[in-house]
Amino acid sequence: MKARVQVMLKTGVLDPQGEAIRHALGALGFDGVEGVRQGKVIEIDLAETDPEAAEAQLSEMCEKLLANTVIESYKIDLS
Amino acid sequence: MKARVQVMLKTGVLDPQGEAIRHALGALGFDGVEGVRQGKVIEIDLAETDPEAAEAQLSEMCEKLLANTVIESYKIDLS
Repeated sequence: MKARVQVMLKTGVLDPQGEAIRHALGALGFDGVEGVRQGKVIEIDLAETDPEAAEAQLSEMCEKLLANTVIESYKIDLS
Repeated sequence: MKARVQVMLKTGVLDPQGEAIRHALGALGFDGVEGVRQGKVIEIDLAETDPEAAEAQLSEMCEKLLANTVIESYKIDLS
């Protein structure tokens, strides 16, 4: 079972990487870019085939390793 | 208009970050993790409201700045 975990900085947490991209896009002549936030995406291939068990396992992975839940939020998509 | 761009290393390109995550998950006791790939996700807030024009602009941003198309592929989602 394949899963995609998206980890983003929470709203209100300063995102210097996103700001750097916004500046660079402006310098390249792209107008109308109002905001940029950068995060991570992690694609995981699991042996688990039960969607509920997989989601529980992925939540635990996020809490323990993949996201720093003080400043980051995560979203799990199973496919 | 909000857009999400996902940039991943192409299949076959070595992904040391993904491998590090896979090892760490194993060390934490998560079994059945068969593969991990890590990429970037960039959320962009555009002034453009026409979906076609926005997608064209985003493709150009990816080609010029956001992705290294030699080793990375990108996917654009408009929302």
